[in-house]
Amino acid sequence: MVDRILHGDTRAVAQAISLVENNVKESTDILRALFPRTGNAYRIGITGPPGVGKSTLTNRLAKHYRAQKCKVGIIAVDPTSPFTGGALLGDRVRMSDVELDEGVFIRSMASRGSLGGLSRKAREAADILDAAGYNIILMETVGVGQSELDILRAVDTTVVVLVPESGDGIQAMKAGLMEIADLFVMNKADRPGADQASASIEFVLGLRPHSGQDWQVRIVKTHAHEGQGITEAAAMIDQHRSYLQTSNAFVERRKKQLKQRIQEIINEQLHFDFWIPERTAFLTQQIEKVFSRSLTPYDVAQKLIAHFKQPRGK
Amino acid sequence: MVDRILHGDTRAVAQAISLVENNVKESTDILRALFPRTGNAYRIGITGPPGVGKSTLTNRLAKHYRAQKCKVGIIAVDPTSPFTGGALLGDRVRMSDVELDEGVFIRSMASRGSLGGLSRKAREAADILDAAGYNIILMETVGVGQSELDILRAVDTTVVVLVPESGDGIQAMKAGLMEIADLFVMNKADRPGADQASASIEFVLGLRPHSGQDWQVRIVKTHAHEGQGITEAAAMIDQHRSYLQTSNAFVERRKKQLKQRIQEIINEQLHFDFWIPERTAFLTQQIEKVFSRSLTPYDVAQKLIAHFKQPRGK
Repeated sequence: MVDRILHGDTRAVAQAISLVENNVKESTDILRALFPRTGNAYRIGITGPPGVGKSTLTNRLAKHYRAQKCKVGIIAVDPTSPFTGGALLGDRVRMSDVELDEGVFIRSMASRGSLGGLSRKAREAADILDAAGYNIILMETVGVGQSELDILRAVDTTVVVLVPESGDGIQAMKAGLMEIADLFVMNKADRPGADQASASIEFVLGLRPHSGQDWQVRIVKTHAHEGQGITEAAAMIDQHRSYLQTSNAFVERRKKQLKQRIQEIINEQLHFDFWIPERTAFLTQQIEKVFSRSLTPYDVAQKLIAHFKQPRGK
Repeated sequence: MVDRILHGDTRAVAQAISLVENNVKESTDILRALFPRTGNAYRIGITGPPGVGKSTLTNRLAKHYRAQKCKVGIIAVDPTSPFTGGALLGDRVRMSDVELDEGVFIRSMASRGSLGGLSRKAREAADILDAAGYNIILMETVGVGQSELDILRAVDTTVVVLVPESGDGIQAMKAGLMEIADLFVMNKADRPGADQASASIEFVLGLRPHSGQDWQVRIVKTHAHEGQGITEAAAMIDQHRSYLQTSNAFVERRKKQLKQRIQEIINEQLHFDFWIPERTAFLTQQIEKVFSRSLTPYDVAQKLIAHFKQPRGK
């Protein structure tokens, strides 16, 4: 399978991502084998509140990069995205036309009902696409919640998409999107209030401390549905990429991501090693005593940790 | 200090919460000593998007419970709450008048810049108030983000506050608030669209699978600023409390919370034990090799875990 992935076989790519998604043990071996061939794709996060047109923008950007002969991978982790088949109450948007393009690989990953580790899985899926020779990876996520934010911490450029209405700018700031945005897209910019909304985001950006960084976050207006502003948005992404790559920032960012990745692998492994049936059963057993206050949570935790740490065979 | 807390000394309570907040090691000893005297307070979570009037409602509910001779603790974990002194761009609301009442203890905990473990700290603060004899604990949080949701998983009744505007209902649903709501409050119900907004939430609630539960989530309209609907909201909270306490749900919920609590203590302890300076330094050292692809993240994780597990003295 590793060989087939490295040769860009889309069926092998899809299968490997499924193994990752279902937490199949062999997926680690595949990822380990693929890792030396990763690091070449440029990863772009597309985020913002529901209904702002993230998928349409993702779709348009994919087309833009295809016109530049790039292979494009799309990973959609968004309950409201047409890629994921979400749109719980809203209109079901037509499926993307890039889906028929062989140079575009689209994979949706559900955020609900996931077996956990969603952000890890999304990043591992990106690694598989990276090793398979995709040059651009677009990761679409609604950007609310820890695992979604974790996904964005693993991209090179984060695009925050907003629309003129509903004070999204301030909401976005409160949700922490402001801190992670490398670029804002004001989509549906044909609607009234677009200039004012852009101005207020610029105002907020002006308040933000620069923390010694040279990159100045800016706003691009688009009307993605009509294909307007896409070239400008892509040009801004390129500018950010050049900024990262000519400064030390790119290498630093990627090293930091690898460090977080290792810490995450360790946490998952420790969790797996810790919660063997014996200790899980002990915990369930002791809850009664904790509930009746004859034991404290700290006592039970201590006993379980001591059991975990004792050398085998004793 | 434990004795003073058990006698309801507010200075000791405040000091103990500070120890928890600053991750001071002794706080565990205090919590362990207090634990047998906890479990008596009823915990109510107040959550919802920024600007819906959570603090005003919290304030009014506190007054309501005071009138019933309850001692009330308020823990505000919300960057936009006047209790926390937040309100980044919005108007600075006047401070609450319950603050002058000796039977009300208010503590704000910052969600930004926290040393981590915010949800644990908020729950431990609630435990301290519980042991100090507060009968009702109101936990106010914006409800976006993992740690905020974790706080709500540790309460008995969760109240989700919304306003008529801006499709908050659907946003709330997407953010996962719908799943955790035991009760909705449609605040600022004097505004146009309140009936329609309530109706659309009721519609969504109707779609929700009941999963064998007997509690039917309902909506109360309030105008907290004018004190309207507070009695009705409190009555609904009481109904939920009665439902929990007459069914098996209360005991089950609290046992589940204690289990999560123990797991959390274990995770924090393992993290603390794992990341000794020696292993942290090793990780930093190896990143260079991972970045150049001569080592994989899996190799480094494996080595660190092996080092952690090896018996001492070897």
